[in-house]
Amino acid sequence: MAEQKKLVAEITSMDEDFAQWYTDVCTKAELIAYSKIKGFMVIKPAGYAIWEAIQQHLDARFKATGVQNVYMPLLMPESLLKKEGELVNGFAPEVAWVTQGGSEPLTERYCIRPTSETVFSDFYSEDVHSYRELPRLYNQWCSVVRWEKETRPFLRSREFLWQEGHTIHATKEEGEERTQQMLNVYADFLSEDMAIPTIKGRKTDKEKFAGAEATYTVEALMHDGRALQSATSHFFGQKFAEAYDITFTDKDNTLKYAWQTSWGLSTRAIGAMIMVHGDNRGLVIPPRIAPIQLCIIPIQQRKEGVLDKAYELKEILKGFRVKVDDTDKSPGFKFAEQEMRGIPLRLEIGPRDIENGECVVVRRDTGEKITCSLDGIDATIGSLLEQIQKDMLEKARRHLEEHTYTAASKEEFEKLFAEKSGFVKAMWCGELACEEKIKEDYGVTSRCMPFAQEQIAGTCVCCGKPAKKMVYWGRSY
Amino acid sequence: MAEQKKLVAEITSMDEDFAQWYTDVCTKAELIAYSKIKGFMVIKPAGYAIWEAIQQHLDARFKATGVQNVYMPLLMPESLLKKEGELVNGFAPEVAWVTQGGSEPLTERYCIRPTSETVFSDFYSEDVHSYRELPRLYNQWCSVVRWEKETRPFLRSREFLWQEGHTIHATKEEGEERTQQMLNVYADFLSEDMAIPTIKGRKTDKEKFAGAEATYTVEALMHDGRALQSATSHFFGQKFAEAYDITFTDKDNTLKYAWQTSWGLSTRAIGAMIMVHGDNRGLVIPPRIAPIQLCIIPIQQRKEGVLDKAYELKEILKGFRVKVDDTDKSPGFKFAEQEMRGIPLRLEIGPRDIENGECVVVRRDTGEKITCSLDGIDATIGSLLEQIQKDMLEKARRHLEEHTYTAASKEEFEKLFAEKSGFVKAMWCGELACEEKIKEDYGVTSRCMPFAQEQIAGTCVCCGKPAKKMVYWGRSY
Repeated sequence: MAEQKKLVAEITSMDEDFAQWYTDVCTKAELIAYSKIKGFMVIKPAGYAIWEAIQQHLDARFKATGVQNVYMPLLMPESLLKKEGELVNGFAPEVAWVTQGGSEPLTERYCIRPTSETVFSDFYSEDVHSYRELPRLYNQWCSVVRWEKETRPFLRSREFLWQEGHTIHATKEEGEERTQQMLNVYADFLSEDMAIPTIKGRKTDKEKFAGAEATYTVEALMHDGRALQSATSHFFGQKFAEAYDITFTDKDNTLKYAWQTSWGLSTRAIGAMIMVHGDNRGLVIPPRIAPIQLCIIPIQQRKEGVLDKAYELKEILKGFRVKVDDTDKSPGFKFAEQEMRGIPLRLEIGPRDIENGECVVVRRDTGEKITCSLDGIDATIGSLLEQIQKDMLEKARRHLEEHTYTAASKEEFEKLFAEKSGFVKAMWCGELACEEKIKEDYGVTSRCMPFAQEQIAGTCVCCGKPAKKMVYWGRSY
Repeated sequence: MAEQKKLVAEITSMDEDFAQWYTDVCTKAELIAYSKIKGFMVIKPAGYAIWEAIQQHLDARFKATGVQNVYMPLLMPESLLKKEGELVNGFAPEVAWVTQGGSEPLTERYCIRPTSETVFSDFYSEDVHSYRELPRLYNQWCSVVRWEKETRPFLRSREFLWQEGHTIHATKEEGEERTQQMLNVYADFLSEDMAIPTIKGRKTDKEKFAGAEATYTVEALMHDGRALQSATSHFFGQKFAEAYDITFTDKDNTLKYAWQTSWGLSTRAIGAMIMVHGDNRGLVIPPRIAPIQLCIIPIQQRKEGVLDKAYELKEILKGFRVKVDDTDKSPGFKFAEQEMRGIPLRLEIGPRDIENGECVVVRRDTGEKITCSLDGIDATIGSLLEQIQKDMLEKARRHLEEHTYTAASKEEFEKLFAEKSGFVKAMWCGELACEEKIKEDYGVTSRCMPFAQEQIAGTCVCCGKPAKKMVYWGRSY
């Protein structure tokens, strides 16, 4: 147990220093390593396997809605980026510029994609001619670069991995529908696969994406009560179509501008998973996303028959993602490692268990130890994994509910943010001035105007004028 | 048939202008589009789906040998790149340099990865300490940038997609074994999945990778008789370990340098597939890699029951990747399109076929039309796809054999390259001077020193001095 203690002792406690706990988990669970350039991280096998699982689940959900994958150039000429004013203003301060190719300086500088609206728009403008070719539902999985000042693994890095979908449509209705549809895909993916409940809503004009007509978001609540924007979906109207000349001949034989959307989810989702489910023993990965779902740990593995039994169990359980830890570390060390890495279940099997035809199964999420018969172990593991997935979502949902407060007045609003951490639902007049004042006074931002609106009060918590919208407010990552 | 003719007429004939035929296939089969930056291409859905299939097959083969995926930074500081002299000299003339991040000029310029030996080496130097942690078998799927002067889709572009494996080992033997093992993985993948036979061998010092001790290659022969290096595997010895200080404590408690390998396959493989299997009607994709294996084309689809039967067949054939082309184009147009896109099989089903309980199946590779009973169509399609896969490899193998010549003397060598296109096997003294002279005189390069050596003659075809190696020579892409 000494070894186990040692491994665990390396993590800071969540309650002591949440930010340090987060960084500790990222490195001790071997998800990432730092590189020589600030904000550029190495995603190690344990971290990348989670991203692969996310890709697999999300990509299947995309394809089920008719989305096709493509690959667009990494670089774009400055002149192309500059065609749409708002996007330039939003991104220009944080792009990386390439000024030299080989031994020759470039005549025009190229930026590394911070997002690909411009490149997709340029492509669509040449590729699409008729309503018959619409909609175009393209997505790419790639890395993007944004020169952030403050960086943290997964949450804010200068390079990150993501997917970006970019669609064009013949009608406004179709475009708006796709924007909502993809937001729902994200919300379903996050809750069903990652066990992360979210609030769905629309961003205020202040918080929306540069150049978007409307930005929709799914907001999750971390363990420390701070919000994390977990994915966004944007409706651009015809703004890019006009700037990049994306036109098509419609059924009525007239030339029209296309309607456009984009939507993205990044490796930030891994950060969300860590901060929603993790605990003081490390990572806790929901079973559907877990690269390894069950770790079999042989006890007294040198005793005859123990390792054979472990391999036999792995074979019986081949419908799941199973690993046998047959290294020469002590069982205690292996337990701590399995817990740190967030593997949903461990199965302990030793000589006495074999004699009794049973084994001990331990749940990572609750720590519960269950003695199971080896008969029907396949079904037992299957239903335990399902149960864990369900319980993790339920626990996160309870946390979200218990940390969502309601403020009807300025006093209540102030008091809540002074005393509590979490979301505060409150009414807003719709004016930018109030949004800015709230940010200045309390350090909180409007997270979204939820689709599920409630009439909490008649007046804005900031200025007291008639309220237009209920907003979720919070401190955010 | 007029429409079909029109679509087909857009491709240049292979025999007339092979280079133009190639470009035509890339664009007309909708694999790529050009972007605003020379050598940076858009990979469209039909092209990207082939890359996804390649990734899926190859990644499974990697993982079966214990390889794990990771993600390494896109950028590296110039100082890091410069640590290993040969690599810098090899790549510095063709890297893209980032000199500005956001609104600030950088104090040191960063290059976009042209390959990641340096980044992996830097990472391993900090991450590995003991023999217990070895081997490390990491791979990444990513894009790389090399500022090439001449560019062609898939074959030579300034940005391309690839995988790069980078491993470190405790012993030389293990490192050498891994280098060979991965070469075999590529050769097996290319022949079994992509139906592309290759010659396995070692590169001469002149042609090997910058910084490598040994480079191994799989060389394929294109339809026009030119060679294409389809994947490479490098053994670095301890060169990078010394430059980047990758050390570990061995079993005997002494500090040692690690042994290193790297190996890669890129979107070039798609170029190889096009030029090995394609014909004057367009692309021909081997069934295992084909994103769509069978296209069902309804005949007189407005007649009652025809479309229903097509969908029913799709359901029956759900074990395969099947598409029903129910658009309102004419059957002739659909045939031409399916042929252009290289879908291995098409199934034609019309009212009379339904009445007779049969359908017509047409092979893309041979053009053969087969009338098949609808009873047992599942098994029929399965065995046809297997047969096509086998026949495509066999055909390509025959082409390779028929275009591989043997030259015992200088005169034979000269005559062969004057009259034939393909590989010429000939003896070489091992001197760089002869290799350079052969390149200058005949425009051909040494493709590899094959593992399967033959004693064709006793003397070098260039200088007449005693021969050391049999070499495959050829014009290459």
